[in-house]
Parts: sequence; C-alpha cells; structure tokens
Amino acid sequence: MKPAISIVTLGVADYGRSKAFYEALGWSTELDIQETAFLQANGVLLVLWARDKLAADTGVKDDGARWSGITLGHNVASRDEVDSIIEDARRNGADITHEPGETFYGGYAGVFCDPDGHAWEIAHDPGFGLTEDGSIVLP
Amino acid sequence: MKPAISIVTLGVADYGRSKAFYEALGWSTELDIQETAFLQANGVLLVLWARDKLAADTGVKDDGARWSGITLGHNVASRDEVDSIIEDARRNGADITHEPGETFYGGYAGVFCDPDGHAWEIAHDPGFGLTEDGSIVLP
Repeated sequence: MKPAISIVTLGVADYGRSKAFYEALGWSTELDIQETAFLQANGVLLVLWARDKLAADTGVKDDGARWSGITLGHNVASRDEVDSIIEDARRNGADITHEPGETFYGGYAGVFCDPDGHAWEIAHDPGFGLTEDGSIVLP
Repeated sequence: MKPAISIVTLGVADYGRSKAFYEALGWSTELDIQETAFLQANGVLLVLWARDKLAADTGVKDDGARWSGITLGHNVASRDEVDSIIEDARRNGADITHEPGETFYGGYAGVFCDPDGHAWEIAHDPGFGLTEDGSIVLP
C-alpha cells in the first residue's frame, strides 16, 4: 500500500442539507451522480453520500453514534483565517465544539462539527509549511 | 474556506499497535512526537493520536462506538493491486468487511477496517484518473 488517501467519504443523514452546507462554506460540487457529491480538494476528493448506503458499501453495522474517531484538518496561513472560517461555519449552523484559541503545540485552532457531527479542525500551525492548495509537506 | 483537507487524524486505542499496523502496510512515520505519529501521504497528512486526546482536543464526547461514518479511500491502478493490498491488510490483522469484488459503478473494490475500526476502501475505478502519488483529479 502506497501512503495515499484518494477519497474521504462522509456518510450523511440528509444529502441536500450536507451539500448545501459545504457549498455555503466555499466548496463546490463538481460531480453530482445519484445523490453522490464529489468535491475536489487538494489531490483528494471529498465525497458526500447517504450514511446508510456508505455503511452497507463499507460492510459495517451502523450504530448511529455521532462522533467518528476521525478529525479532518484544514490548515490555513493565519489566525485571522481560523477565526473567519469558524464564524462562517457557525453562521451556517455548524456546532462549534472548540472555540478558536491557542493550541498546545504553539498554534491556533478551532473546531466545528458539520450537520452529521463530522469534525473539522481549522488550524494555523506556524511549524508546518503549507502549499498554495492547502497541502502540508513535512520538513 | 478553501476546498482542502490538510490532515486526517485517526483516534487510536493503542498507539504502538496502530503505528505498527500502518508501517506494516507500507506507510512510514516521518515524525513521532509525544505519541503522535505523522505519516506523509499525497498532499495530506495521516496522523495517529490517542483517541481520548483527540476527542478532548476536538471538543466532543466519545461514546466509544466503532464505526466512524467516514470511509477513507485508497485508489489504485489495477484490480490486482486491490487484491494484494486487502491480503496484506488481512495478514496484518485487519478485519475485511467487504471482500474484493465488482462495484455498482463498474469498478472493483474491497474494504478493510484497521485495529480501531477505521474503514479503508481499496478501489480500482476505471472512470477516475489517478496521478502517480495516488491523488484523483476529477475530469
């Protein structure tokens, strides 16, 4: 297995609501096929798909729990960007589970949960380089 | 918010076990700081971190459920690669929740769950272009 993540698929309860949520935050749906939305990110696709279909396709039993044990990271170039994205998420109905503030590693971050509880940490980490498209490349 | 995923952090129950699992599959830990492993992928970092620390940092209550509602995708160039990665995961103790087979979209895929239940779909999708580093770029 080559170290690569090609797709992150989020199981969603209400397809239209989730698509509207991500589009309101600045993502765009480039393909929309049979209630499956493909949103291009930096070398990785974000896919929105009904949670029951994703569970069946993944071959797992879904117990309906809210938190995933996975946190998606979105790194930005400044503290102001952290604040502005968290405010944008709040305006769009996201739950802010961690208000922006100093982090233990000397950065600045806040966390929102999307309408299905998927967690996004919006972070400014001065220790990490960041490319134009939002990718981190380790030193 | 720019459409970008910089980091995928997996909350893990046993740090050493998870690091060994991913390393056995071909990933490499490029930074290992205070029981936090950073594994470089295609323009995105995979991070392994204790699930309780991640939950606290994310600001969520963890109910200990197994499935995440998120499936990570790893796309490859051939069906043989799907089979070989699934076998490799099986040999390393992963739970194969979906044996490799034809998909509804005309591809071929299998799914394994890592020691914490995080789901990875290993897929060959002839409809998607794939770059050398494992990134998909939509047409």
